[in-house]
Amino acid sequence: MSAKKQFNGSADELESAFYDAISKADLEGLMALWAEDEEIVCVHPGAPRLVGHAAIRASWEAIFERGSVHIHPMQLHAMHNMFTAVHSVIEEVQRKTNKSQDMHILATNVYIKTPQGWRIATHHASAAAGDPPLDLFKASVLH
Amino acid sequence: MSAKKQFNGSADELESAFYDAISKADLEGLMALWAEDEEIVCVHPGAPRLVGHAAIRASWEAIFERGSVHIHPMQLHAMHNMFTAVHSVIEEVQRKTNKSQDMHILATNVYIKTPQGWRIATHHASAAAGDPPLDLFKASVLH
Repeated sequence: MSAKKQFNGSADELESAFYDAISKADLEGLMALWAEDEEIVCVHPGAPRLVGHAAIRASWEAIFERGSVHIHPMQLHAMHNMFTAVHSVIEEVQRKTNKSQDMHILATNVYIKTPQGWRIATHHASAAAGDPPLDLFKASVLH
Repeated sequence: MSAKKQFNGSADELESAFYDAISKADLEGLMALWAEDEEIVCVHPGAPRLVGHAAIRASWEAIFERGSVHIHPMQLHAMHNMFTAVHSVIEEVQRKTNKSQDMHILATNVYIKTPQGWRIATHHASAAAGDPPLDLFKASVLH
Protein backbone atom coordinates (compact mmCIF):
# COMPACT_ATOMS: atom_id res chain seq x y z
CA MET A 1 0.00 0.00 0.00
CA SER A 2 1.36 3.40 -0.98
CA ALA A 3 2.18 5.96 1.69
CA LYS A 4 -0.21 8.23 -0.22
CA LYS A 5 -3.03 5.94 0.91
CA GLN A 6 -2.90 7.79 4.22
CA PHE A 7 -3.42 11.23 2.70
CA ASN A 8 -5.06 13.26 5.42
CA GLY A 9 -4.82 16.89 4.34
CA SER A 10 -7.39 19.56 3.64
CA ALA A 11 -9.40 19.87 0.43
CA ASP A 12 -6.90 22.46 -0.82
CA GLU A 13 -4.02 20.10 -0.08
CA LEU A 14 -5.90 17.32 -1.86
CA GLU A 15 -6.07 19.47 -4.98
CA SER A 16 -2.34 20.11 -4.77
CA ALA A 17 -1.68 16.39 -4.29
CA PHE A 18 -3.88 15.61 -7.30
CA TYR A 19 -2.00 17.86 -9.72
CA ASP A 20 1.31 16.87 -8.14
CA ALA A 21 0.63 13.16 -8.77
CA ILE A 22 -0.24 13.99 -12.40
CA SER A 23 3.00 15.95 -12.80
CA LYS A 24 4.93 12.90 -11.55
CA ALA A 25 2.89 10.37 -13.55
CA ASP A 26 2.35 8.67 -10.16
CA LEU A 27 -0.57 6.36 -10.91
CA GLU A 28 -0.76 4.72 -7.47
CA GLY A 29 -0.51 8.04 -5.67
CA LEU A 30 -3.16 9.55 -7.93
CA MET A 31 -5.66 6.73 -7.55
CA ALA A 32 -5.27 6.72 -3.74
CA LEU A 33 -6.67 10.26 -3.69
CA TRP A 34 -10.08 9.24 -5.04
CA ALA A 35 -13.03 8.30 -2.84
CA GLU A 36 -13.61 4.60 -2.34
CA ASP A 37 -16.89 4.71 -4.20
CA GLU A 38 -17.79 3.32 -7.60
CA GLU A 39 -19.76 6.49 -8.41
CA ILE A 40 -16.60 8.59 -8.78
CA VAL A 41 -16.54 10.37 -12.15
CA CYS A 42 -13.69 11.62 -14.35
CA VAL A 43 -14.12 13.50 -17.62
CA HIS A 44 -11.04 14.30 -19.72
CA PRO A 45 -11.45 17.15 -22.23
CA GLY A 46 -13.61 16.05 -25.16
CA ALA A 47 -13.70 12.44 -24.00
CA PRO A 48 -16.58 10.28 -22.81
CA ARG A 49 -17.39 10.10 -19.11
CA LEU A 50 -15.54 7.55 -16.98
CA VAL A 51 -17.24 6.11 -13.90
CA GLY A 52 -15.54 4.02 -11.20
CA HIS A 53 -11.96 3.19 -10.27
CA ALA A 54 -11.11 0.72 -13.04
CA ALA A 55 -12.09 3.00 -15.93
CA ILE A 56 -10.53 6.09 -14.36
CA ARG A 57 -7.30 4.26 -13.54
CA ALA A 58 -7.00 2.89 -17.08
CA SER A 59 -7.42 6.38 -18.54
CA TRP A 60 -4.64 7.90 -16.44
CA GLU A 61 -2.43 4.91 -17.11
CA ALA A 62 -2.82 5.55 -20.84
CA ILE A 63 -2.09 9.27 -20.35
CA PHE A 64 1.02 8.55 -18.25
CA GLU A 65 2.37 6.16 -20.91
CA ARG A 66 2.95 9.30 -22.96
CA GLY A 67 4.70 10.96 -19.99
CA SER A 68 3.75 13.18 -17.09
CA VAL A 69 1.58 16.26 -17.53
CA HIS A 70 2.30 19.54 -15.80
CA ILE A 71 -0.92 21.32 -14.94
CA HIS A 72 -1.10 24.47 -12.88
CA PRO A 73 -4.62 25.17 -11.55
CA MET A 74 -5.37 28.90 -11.59
CA GLN A 75 -8.16 31.34 -10.81
CA LEU A 76 -9.86 29.16 -8.21
CA HIS A 77 -13.50 29.77 -7.40
CA ALA A 78 -14.70 27.62 -4.53
CA MET A 79 -17.79 26.78 -2.52
CA HIS A 80 -17.54 24.53 0.49
CA ASN A 81 -19.30 23.16 3.50
CA MET A 82 -18.21 20.75 6.22
CA PHE A 83 -18.22 17.72 3.95
CA THR A 84 -17.71 19.02 0.43
CA ALA A 85 -15.51 21.43 -1.48
CA VAL A 86 -16.43 22.39 -5.04
CA HIS A 87 -13.50 23.91 -6.92
CA SER A 88 -13.61 25.53 -10.34
CA VAL A 89 -10.19 26.15 -11.84
CA ILE A 90 -8.59 27.06 -15.12
CA GLU A 91 -5.92 24.47 -15.88
CA GLU A 92 -2.74 25.95 -17.26
CA VAL A 93 -1.27 22.98 -19.09
CA GLN A 94 2.44 23.03 -19.89
CA ARG A 95 2.80 21.78 -23.43
CA LYS A 96 5.90 21.04 -25.38
CA THR A 97 4.81 23.38 -28.15
CA ASN A 98 4.32 27.07 -27.57
CA LYS A 99 1.80 27.28 -30.36
CA SER A 100 -1.34 29.08 -29.30
CA GLN A 101 -4.31 26.77 -29.49
CA ASP A 102 -6.96 29.44 -29.01
CA MET A 103 -8.54 27.42 -26.22
CA HIS A 104 -8.12 26.76 -22.54
CA ILE A 105 -9.12 24.03 -20.10
CA LEU A 106 -11.74 24.45 -17.36
CA ALA A 107 -12.08 21.94 -14.54
CA THR A 108 -14.69 21.30 -11.89
CA ASN A 109 -13.18 19.31 -9.03
CA VAL A 110 -15.46 18.06 -6.27
CA TYR A 111 -13.86 16.86 -3.04
CA ILE A 112 -15.75 15.10 -0.28
CA LYS A 113 -14.90 14.35 3.33
CA THR A 114 -14.95 10.58 3.75
CA PRO A 115 -14.17 8.51 6.86
CA GLN A 116 -10.62 8.30 5.45
CA GLY A 117 -10.35 12.08 4.95
CA TRP A 118 -10.80 14.37 1.94
CA ARG A 119 -11.02 12.47 -1.33
CA ILE A 120 -11.86 13.24 -4.97
CA ALA A 121 -15.45 12.59 -6.05
CA THR A 122 -15.44 14.24 -9.48
CA HIS A 123 -12.92 15.68 -11.91
CA HIS A 124 -14.60 17.18 -14.97
CA ALA A 125 -12.25 18.93 -17.41
CA SER A 126 -13.30 20.44 -20.72
CA ALA A 127 -11.99 22.78 -23.39
CA ALA A 128 -13.32 26.32 -23.76
CA ALA A 129 -12.90 28.54 -26.78
CA GLY A 130 -10.47 31.45 -26.65
CA ASP A 131 -7.57 32.36 -24.44
CA PRO A 132 -8.00 32.03 -20.68
CA PRO A 133 -9.56 35.13 -19.13
CA LEU A 134 -7.27 37.69 -17.58
CA ASP A 135 -6.54 36.99 -13.97
CA LEU A 136 -7.74 40.30 -12.55
CA PHE A 137 -6.24 39.73 -9.13
CA LYS A 138 -2.85 38.90 -10.54
CA ALA A 139 -3.08 41.85 -12.93
CA SER A 140 -3.88 44.26 -10.13
CA VAL A 141 -0.91 43.01 -8.15
CA LEU A 142 1.45 43.39 -11.07
CA HIS A 143 0.40 46.82 -12.27
CA MET B 1 -40.68 37.54 -6.18
CA SER B 2 -41.39 34.38 -8.14
CA ALA B 3 -43.19 31.48 -6.52
CA LYS B 4 -40.16 29.44 -7.53
CA LYS B 5 -38.16 31.44 -4.98
CA GLN B 6 -39.60 29.14 -2.34
CA PHE B 7 -38.38 25.94 -3.97
CA ASN B 8 -37.98 23.48 -1.14
CA GLY B 9 -37.64 20.07 -2.75
CA SER B 10 -34.92 17.45 -2.69
CA ALA B 11 -31.73 17.54 -4.75
CA ASP B 12 -33.38 15.25 -7.31
CA GLU B 13 -36.39 17.56 -7.51
CA LEU B 14 -34.02 20.52 -7.90
CA GLU B 15 -32.47 18.84 -10.92
CA SER B 16 -35.93 18.31 -12.42
CA ALA B 17 -36.84 21.94 -11.71
CA PHE B 18 -33.60 23.09 -13.36
CA TYR B 19 -34.20 21.28 -16.66
CA ASP B 20 -37.90 22.13 -16.49
CA ALA B 21 -37.14 25.87 -16.23
CA ILE B 22 -34.79 25.56 -19.22
CA SER B 23 -37.48 23.79 -21.24
CA LYS B 24 -39.86 26.68 -20.50
CA ALA B 25 -37.25 29.40 -21.05
CA ASP B 26 -38.25 30.56 -17.54
CA LEU B 27 -35.36 32.86 -16.64
CA GLU B 28 -36.70 33.98 -13.24
CA GLY B 29 -37.60 30.45 -12.22
CA LEU B 30 -34.21 29.19 -13.35
CA MET B 31 -32.18 31.83 -11.53
CA ALA B 32 -34.13 31.31 -8.29
CA LEU B 33 -32.77 27.75 -8.17
CA TRP B 34 -29.14 28.83 -7.79
CA ALA B 35 -27.44 29.35 -4.42
CA GLU B 36 -27.27 32.93 -3.18
CA ASP B 37 -23.50 32.97 -3.48
CA GLU B 38 -21.30 34.81 -5.93
CA GLU B 39 -19.07 31.73 -6.28
CA ILE B 40 -21.70 29.81 -8.28
CA VAL B 41 -20.27 28.56 -11.56
CA CYS B 42 -21.89 27.74 -14.92
CA VAL B 43 -20.05 26.35 -17.95
CA HIS B 44 -21.92 25.97 -21.23
CA PRO B 45 -20.39 23.50 -23.73
CA GLY B 46 -17.22 24.96 -25.27
CA ALA B 47 -17.75 28.35 -23.67
CA PRO B 48 -15.72 30.22 -21.06
CA ARG B 49 -16.56 29.83 -17.39
CA LEU B 50 -19.23 32.08 -15.89
CA VAL B 51 -19.03 33.00 -12.20
CA GLY B 52 -21.78 34.73 -10.21
CA HIS B 53 -25.44 35.55 -10.76
CA ALA B 54 -25.12 38.42 -13.24
CA ALA B 55 -22.94 36.55 -15.75
CA ILE B 56 -24.91 33.32 -15.45
CA ARG B 57 -28.24 35.12 -15.81
CA ALA B 58 -27.04 37.00 -18.91
CA SER B 59 -25.95 33.74 -20.57
CA TRP B 60 -29.30 32.03 -20.08
CA GLU B 61 -31.13 35.16 -21.17
CA ALA B 62 -29.16 35.05 -24.44
CA ILE B 63 -29.91 31.34 -24.85
CA PHE B 64 -33.63 31.83 -24.20
CA GLU B 65 -33.80 34.65 -26.78
CA ARG B 66 -33.37 31.86 -29.33
CA GLY B 67 -36.14 29.84 -27.63
CA SER B 68 -36.43 27.19 -24.99
CA VAL B 69 -34.19 24.13 -24.92
CA HIS B 70 -35.47 20.66 -24.16
CA ILE B 71 -32.87 18.66 -22.29
CA HIS B 72 -33.47 15.24 -20.84
CA PRO B 73 -30.84 14.25 -18.25
CA MET B 74 -30.01 10.55 -18.54
CA GLN B 75 -27.74 7.91 -17.02
CA LEU B 76 -27.36 9.62 -13.65
CA HIS B 77 -24.39 8.78 -11.48
CA ALA B 78 -24.58 10.45 -8.08
CA MET B 79 -22.66 10.87 -4.85
CA HIS B 80 -24.23 12.67 -1.94
CA ASN B 81 -23.96 13.52 1.70
CA MET B 82 -26.18 15.53 4.03
CA PHE B 83 -25.30 18.86 2.47
CA THR B 84 -24.24 18.12 -1.10
CA ALA B 85 -25.35 16.08 -4.11
CA VAL B 86 -22.97 15.62 -7.04
CA HIS B 87 -24.79 14.52 -10.18
CA SER B 88 -23.18 13.42 -13.42
CA VAL B 89 -25.63 13.13 -16.31
CA ILE B 90 -25.66 12.76 -20.06
CA GLU B 91 -27.83 15.53 -21.47
CA GLU B 92 -30.10 14.37 -24.27
CA VAL B 93 -30.74 17.63 -26.10
CA GLN B 94 -33.75 17.80 -28.38
CA ARG B 95 -32.62 19.54 -31.54
CA LYS B 96 -34.63 20.62 -34.51
CA THR B 97 -32.38 18.69 -36.85
CA ASN B 98 -32.05 14.95 -36.67
CA LYS B 99 -28.60 15.06 -38.14
CA SER B 100 -26.14 13.04 -36.13
CA GLN B 101 -23.46 15.28 -34.68
CA ASP B 102 -21.15 12.49 -33.51
CA MET B 103 -20.98 14.05 -30.05
CA HIS B 104 -22.95 14.18 -26.84
CA ILE B 105 -23.16 16.47 -23.83
CA LEU B 106 -21.95 15.57 -20.34
CA ALA B 107 -22.90 17.63 -17.30
CA THR B 108 -21.69 17.77 -13.73
CA ASN B 109 -24.33 19.36 -11.52
CA VAL B 110 -23.48 20.12 -7.90
CA TYR B 111 -26.33 20.89 -5.52
CA ILE B 112 -25.84 22.16 -1.98
CA LYS B 113 -28.16 22.39 0.99
CA THR B 114 -28.43 26.06 1.94
CA PRO B 115 -30.50 27.67 4.70
CA GLN B 116 -33.13 28.21 1.96
CA GLY B 117 -33.03 24.56 0.84
CA TRP B 118 -31.29 22.71 -2.00
CA ARG B 119 -29.76 25.06 -4.55
CA ILE B 120 -27.46 24.81 -7.57
CA ALA B 121 -23.76 25.50 -6.91
CA THR B 122 -22.26 24.37 -10.22
CA HIS B 123 -23.48 23.39 -13.68
CA HIS B 124 -20.61 22.31 -15.92
CA ALA B 125 -21.64 21.01 -19.35
CA SER B 126 -19.25 19.97 -22.09
CA ALA B 127 -19.22 18.10 -25.37
CA ALA B 128 -17.75 14.62 -25.66
CA ALA B 129 -16.77 12.87 -28.87
CA GLY B 130 -18.90 10.06 -30.20
CA ASP B 131 -22.44 8.93 -29.62
CA PRO B 132 -23.67 8.70 -26.03
CA PRO B 133 -22.83 5.36 -24.43
CA LEU B 134 -25.48 2.69 -24.41
CA ASP B 135 -27.72 2.90 -21.39
CA LEU B 136 -27.18 -0.62 -20.09
CA PHE B 137 -30.01 -0.46 -17.61
CA LYS B 138 -32.49 0.72 -20.19
CA ALA B 139 -31.19 -1.83 -22.67
CA SER B 140 -31.64 -4.67 -20.19
CA VAL B 141 -35.21 -3.55 -19.54
CA LEU B 142 -36.04 -3.38 -23.22
CA HIS B 143 -34.46 -6.63 -24.36
